[in-house]
Amino acid sequence: MMILKLGGSIITEKGAKTPTINNNNLKRIAKEIKNALNYQKTSKDFNNGLIIVHGAGSFGHPFASDYEIGKPFNGSEDLEKKKKGFSLTQSWVKKLNSLICDVLREENINSVSIQPSSFVITRNKRIEHANLDLINQYLETGFVPVLYGDVVLDLEKSIKMAVLSGDQIINYIAKKLVPERVILGTDVDGVFNKNPKKDYNAQLITELTSLKDLESMDATTNIDVTGGMVGKIKELLELAHIGIESEIINAECENLIEKALCGQKVRGTIIKKNK
Amino acid sequence: MMILKLGGSIITEKGAKTPTINNNNLKRIAKEIKNALNYQKTSKDFNNGLIIVHGAGSFGHPFASDYEIGKPFNGSEDLEKKKKGFSLTQSWVKKLNSLICDVLREENINSVSIQPSSFVITRNKRIEHANLDLINQYLETGFVPVLYGDVVLDLEKSIKMAVLSGDQIINYIAKKLVPERVILGTDVDGVFNKNPKKDYNAQLITELTSLKDLESMDATTNIDVTGGMVGKIKELLELAHIGIESEIINAECENLIEKALCGQKVRGTIIKKNK
Repeated sequence: MMILKLGGSIITEKGAKTPTINNNNLKRIAKEIKNALNYQKTSKDFNNGLIIVHGAGSFGHPFASDYEIGKPFNGSEDLEKKKKGFSLTQSWVKKLNSLICDVLREENINSVSIQPSSFVITRNKRIEHANLDLINQYLETGFVPVLYGDVVLDLEKSIKMAVLSGDQIINYIAKKLVPERVILGTDVDGVFNKNPKKDYNAQLITELTSLKDLESMDATTNIDVTGGMVGKIKELLELAHIGIESEIINAECENLIEKALCGQKVRGTIIKKNK
Repeated sequence: MMILKLGGSIITEKGAKTPTINNNNLKRIAKEIKNALNYQKTSKDFNNGLIIVHGAGSFGHPFASDYEIGKPFNGSEDLEKKKKGFSLTQSWVKKLNSLICDVLREENINSVSIQPSSFVITRNKRIEHANLDLINQYLETGFVPVLYGDVVLDLEKSIKMAVLSGDQIINYIAKKLVPERVILGTDVDGVFNKNPKKDYNAQLITELTSLKDLESMDATTNIDVTGGMVGKIKELLELAHIGIESEIINAECENLIEKALCGQKVRGTIIKKNK
């Protein structure tokens, strides 16, 4: 089984102030996924099965940020405001998930939406409990479960609600379901020693085994600008330490997702255990 | 806590061949719910809390029926077809749920969508397992969880998938969470001894304690025509036998839902235990 992350910056116009889908990317990537699934069926190297996790991009971040979901609330009025923001954010990320599942189905992929806020609860913003039996059952039946960054209830009384990132979902399900490959499609080639969008001398780090690799390169401050890359890497390093490798690739480059899902080596950063 | 069912025939144009919402009903009912919630806050008689469950109407039935979800599949080709139908049906009922949650939120009700196919599994079309802790937690935080008729995985190997009706959801959650009141908003005044849409002599049955009440009135054959009323009654009689009363009322009549949620006695059929 493989896990594929589609970053919010790929499937939505992340800078947009209102929810805006990136239909070109989405339709192209859906075709690439379909091609890869067809290839996997013809090859004995693949234990069929794919879970897709997508980010929220402009369908989630503006609302979660406006209403400060995940920050401590200050009195009952603030709590009411945050609850309204929770309801609003949940609704928009669900709409994004609908759009994505529909485009996948147009490519004859039997997508099944899995809503995190229906079965996940966090404590201090980390998943406390989530039963994955149903996801396993969907996989066994031949569906492609599609999860996503969502807002969820949190057991910490000072916040009550939290933002659950797609990256944390990947961390959690990869630990429990042990995929053969974890592929993260982003809008950059991988992890760089400097911000590649600002510095043309930036070098791609092809292998990463600890956050110290980054610190020694003075890369973390730049990286944080490009969509919370450090948070992403921390989730992936946890997986690397228990032997699950993952790779960050550029989903804006045509066919890279398809190639990666077909088991080919492509340009990107592999997050792996230090030998 | 109360449970309110909004029938698919109320919130959608059930006879429509393509998914069509009944916006007039939906907006009016959302206002009635908001009024009732406001009233409940001012009264000590109410242990605040509301769960809404809605049917699928024209957003679900045409697809589930076309693809025969819940019927045994005949070979792998038929299974593939049913999986496609499952994906399609799940997508449409989710869209209906989005619309309903949005209209509720426009009335400042902090609706939270709960997707049954994300946490419920059936065996032979009856719920085998569903963890309701999260729903309880949403209620305690002051949200209004909104569940709905959905397609779900089924453990019976000959069918693999099933249609989960809103009525079965109500049966399951009422047994576990023991609401003070269960109200079902339908497009008829309640249960009649004859089909009220065809026979103007039909009499409303104001109290029902067993299916024999119906059989003795030769009412079941007529009733089946009006939206699977017998199936609904069976679910509710199970609740009645463990002491949970429910009432079927006409949600097309203005203010009936509001009055019922405010604890008033309104025209309808009460399903209760035989004393």
